[in-house]
Amino acid sequence: MNSLTIRIAYADTDQMGVVYYGNYFTFFERGRTEWLREIGLEYTKIEERGFYFPVIYAECKYIASAKYDDLITVETKLTGITAASITCSYKVKCADKILVSATTKHPFVNKDLKPVRFPKDIRELLEKHLEKEE
Amino acid sequence: MNSLTIRIAYADTDQMGVVYYGNYFTFFERGRTEWLREIGLEYTKIEERGFYFPVIYAECKYIASAKYDDLITVETKLTGITAASITCSYKVKCADKILVSATTKHPFVNKDLKPVRFPKDIRELLEKHLEKEE
Amino acid sequence: MNSLTIRIAYADTDQMGVVYYGNYFTFFERGRTEWLREIGLEYTKIEERGFYFPVIYAECKYIASAKYDDLITVETKLTGITAASITCSYKVKCADKILVSATTKHPFVNKDLKPVRFPKDIRELLEKHLEKEE
Amino acid sequence: MNSLTIRIAYADTDQMGVVYYGNYFTFFERGRTEWLREIGLEYTKIEERGFYFPVIYAECKYIASAKYDDLITVETKLTGITAASITCSYKVKCADKILVSATTKHPFVNKDLKPVRFPKDIRELLEKHLEKEE
Repeated sequence: MNSLTIRIAYADTDQMGVVYYGNYFTFFERGRTEWLREIGLEYTKIEERGFYFPVIYAECKYIASAKYDDLITVETKLTGITAASITCSYKVKCADKILVSATTKHPFVNKDLKPVRFPKDIRELLEKHLEKEE
Repeated sequence: MNSLTIRIAYADTDQMGVVYYGNYFTFFERGRTEWLREIGLEYTKIEERGFYFPVIYAECKYIASAKYDDLITVETKLTGITAASITCSYKVKCADKILVSATTKHPFVNKDLKPVRFPKDIRELLEKHLEKEE
Repeated sequence: MNSLTIRIAYADTDQMGVVYYGNYFTFFERGRTEWLREIGLEYTKIEERGFYFPVIYAECKYIASAKYDDLITVETKLTGITAASITCSYKVKCADKILVSATTKHPFVNKDLKPVRFPKDIRELLEKHLEKEE
Repeated sequence: MNSLTIRIAYADTDQMGVVYYGNYFTFFERGRTEWLREIGLEYTKIEERGFYFPVIYAECKYIASAKYDDLITVETKLTGITAASITCSYKVKCADKILVSATTKHPFVNKDLKPVRFPKDIRELLEKHLEKEE
């Protein structure tokens, strides 16, 4: 699991005084990128090898609101692997309170956006970091 | 069902050359607002009466990509009502091809963000516009 | 001059209840794109010929605030041409009140992002639509 | 001068493969907030006292492009004070190369958005941190 801290800016909020619901998906992307970096699989390196992780599914439960200047934590982990896709799970917390819980699914594709099986090294690395969904 | 046309801007895209996955949620909000206006329930009027429709759940399936300058259509309809919440469903299309299919769920809350039952007029109006999920 | 109408969404606002200052630059981009289309110089066609109009300078005066659900108008016109760049000017209005006044400057570049002189047809078309700064 | 490090996400980029020009204004806001915190004038505390720093002017020179996964630095300093406004200056750098240079101007206003003179403590604190524009 990777834990990334993000400071909420005015730019992230809307007129209800809380983070706009669509902006959490940017936080998930940031968490996912740092999780990949942490396990030694930098996304820029994946792209250099000609592969991509687009998003085919995203689901988000909004439990409580993040507010301006809050210091939130995005916890990202890998909770599913198939031969050609991964599922990531996220918890956004503020001072140990869960604000948001989410899942995204990513096929592994080549430059033509065709799904491809993971190369052996990437598959082994991912499997080593598979965690249980709570 | 409301049908809203949106032109994709550079601002909506990312370096993969397609619309960033998180930006669709803004399109859903725009669709939802226009659907409410179309059935005679402008969101600004709802807020003036002291009520809000925050988001507690969002789910999105990404089927194909919208690209820069595409003229997309966001089709929004009401596919669920309870005593104190609604579920909206969305199809994003480009030239009749479905790009994205999504659902959002919204409790009806008062100024203190407490869930409240719909006033009779709002409930009746919503029920009149309930449609089947395809 | 092109006149583009935009409906302000929750996504555009911040917790002060007005449009976030950085979001106007997206509105200017939308205006610029529609102005180019209107004069017969679609940006996608420019890119197909291997040219781009990146931004090297932007300036914005904020006079009054756009609010949620406002129907704003972005007026875009060409107010400057050199051998290899253009300057666009914008007025954002709501019900004839000027909210924002801005300028952006764009070099004409090739695929290597090197500034290049305008091809004759593009230069002539641009010159025909040069307008005075108010 | 405050120095804030930001990692560029996919969300920040556009289809040209660089940071979208409008997104830098969010980076400036983040830099400004951290500069205020650093000098002991947290923006949330200013708001609690009933004051705000809206933006009335922004200017930005784009020199080179930030790219996905770049670790950029936003350097923020105060370069101007009047009786009721401040001017902030920004340099965005990547590995000591200047990418962007910008200025924003902020009136000091009360809850009715009327410009007001700085309270003595805030004025003294700001004056102590005034720096020269390079």
